[in-house]
Amino acid sequence: MFRPEIKVIDCTVRDGGLMNKWQFDDNFVRKVYTALTDAGVDYMEIGYLSSETAFSRDEYGPWKFCAEDDLKRIIGNKEKKIKLSAMADIGRIEYDDIRPKGESSLDMVRVACYVHQMDKAINLAHHCMDKGYETTINLMAVSTVGLRELEEALDDLAKSRVPIIYLVDSFGAFYSEDIDVLAKKYMASLPGKTIGIHAHNNQQLAFANTIASIINGINYLDATLYGIGRGAGNCPLELLISFLKNPKFKVRPLVEAIEQEILPWRKKIDWGYFIPYMVTGVLNQHPRTAMAHMESDRKNEVTAYFDQITEATDLV
Amino acid sequence: MFRPEIKVIDCTVRDGGLMNKWQFDDNFVRKVYTALTDAGVDYMEIGYLSSETAFSRDEYGPWKFCAEDDLKRIIGNKEKKIKLSAMADIGRIEYDDIRPKGESSLDMVRVACYVHQMDKAINLAHHCMDKGYETTINLMAVSTVGLRELEEALDDLAKSRVPIIYLVDSFGAFYSEDIDVLAKKYMASLPGKTIGIHAHNNQQLAFANTIASIINGINYLDATLYGIGRGAGNCPLELLISFLKNPKFKVRPLVEAIEQEILPWRKKIDWGYFIPYMVTGVLNQHPRTAMAHMESDRKNEVTAYFDQITEATDLV
Repeated sequence: MFRPEIKVIDCTVRDGGLMNKWQFDDNFVRKVYTALTDAGVDYMEIGYLSSETAFSRDEYGPWKFCAEDDLKRIIGNKEKKIKLSAMADIGRIEYDDIRPKGESSLDMVRVACYVHQMDKAINLAHHCMDKGYETTINLMAVSTVGLRELEEALDDLAKSRVPIIYLVDSFGAFYSEDIDVLAKKYMASLPGKTIGIHAHNNQQLAFANTIASIINGINYLDATLYGIGRGAGNCPLELLISFLKNPKFKVRPLVEAIEQEILPWRKKIDWGYFIPYMVTGVLNQHPRTAMAHMESDRKNEVTAYFDQITEATDLV
Repeated sequence: MFRPEIKVIDCTVRDGGLMNKWQFDDNFVRKVYTALTDAGVDYMEIGYLSSETAFSRDEYGPWKFCAEDDLKRIIGNKEKKIKLSAMADIGRIEYDDIRPKGESSLDMVRVACYVHQMDKAINLAHHCMDKGYETTINLMAVSTVGLRELEEALDDLAKSRVPIIYLVDSFGAFYSEDIDVLAKKYMASLPGKTIGIHAHNNQQLAFANTIASIINGINYLDATLYGIGRGAGNCPLELLISFLKNPKFKVRPLVEAIEQEILPWRKKIDWGYFIPYMVTGVLNQHPRTAMAHMESDRKNEVTAYFDQITEATDLV
């Protein structure tokens, strides 16, 4: 029996763009948009909301900015049947560059922050809410946050007006037991709010941890087509949609989009399960050293990477 | 805190051999044997125990048979510090072809069977026990077995002398909730016996379901290096060893074996997460149609495969 409160948020373009500086052409983005719409997915996170002064369009593709003209080009003339979301990083977007909801094709803004940025994140989220957007705060890298800091952050969030708070496993370090403990803590600390999950796949647990989240009452679920994303990638959307029992969801449009748009990228960029990403997941570390190794010409020399990264640990 | 009752069984050569008719050269098998020994893995399942009359050595490599001479060539002159296991399929091995334990380098025989073969499986398992081997029965494809049949099979197993019974997710169809329900049922129906888990990775859940099994008290855990195996493959051994807290386990020898022996196979054979395998997992079907598709020259035409296989289902 499906739970109507569950919403699925596809992050293919936003999180996938971390791999290629959002250099997806319009055909790619339009095909993903159409497939997600046909599949009944609730939200498409189409990119980041950044000020044009913070990054250059020479280096970054349009989905680093999500300008209204870019969005309109994808939506075209047909009625928009899926909600669009963009992620905002603290300090990368000027408040004045966020249009009022009435002038924007975006429905939701998700504010990503580290624990030390919580005050700024709540400020920005309130600003987005006041401009008319659905708004979330995604507290990243919680696997590295100490208990005192986490409780303080959850306390701040509880006092805020922000209605949706994400549990984010930035490093793919969590086991289902971690999800059980943290989901219960988020629920208890944030009465009346909706909780979301964003999992990474370093230990092949992104889908499993999303299921564990559902069992624990988490209702906003992030995923990407074929798990595309930086490093080990994300919870595969087609698995999640196959698992959920809501009859509005369809798998076939996702399979078609994977064939047409995602598999070609698979030949150009490696994401998913590789030993370097697995090791940073196990060690609860940012994947940056693993990404550097995977981009080098020594990517198959996984023992050398292992030795370098585990030098100061007991994972031997 | 680790649970000393937990034993890890590597199936790299046995299950990996389903991909290539066990055509691994001695260097491969020796390197895996050495790596598993150095990593502290409890058992290496080195192949199938088959009668030479049942299959031809022209077509099948040595690990389809596990003859004593083949085993001795791998073990060499050094002391054997890991237990060796072989799997026996009903009807593929003559009782007289199984040597007494005293004349064999094998420590364990695992009898694989479908539910309708339970009487034969118990007979064969008792025969192996009487010849001196540690023995298990691995009841395959339990995701397709009805409740009445399952209860009858578990009842027969409870009355047998076989001490170790495996829960096998042959089609990679189980979610952690299925593991919870079935593990509890196996435990309750088989008092005094040890339960094992053998998971497949069609839905990227093999590792997660193995963790769920551990939480449910299952103590014999199957895995393979880098998840190598037929179709979607298995629970990755390096993930499992990283997760378990027993200080006797080491990850590095596994990483080195993956680099030297498994990654080269990765260039020749596709195993792991692919849409056709995902679809048979979701549909709880044998992966044979998916394997045929993956071996064809249309392997990236996943929508056509999806349409063909879901014609009579509601996974649309």
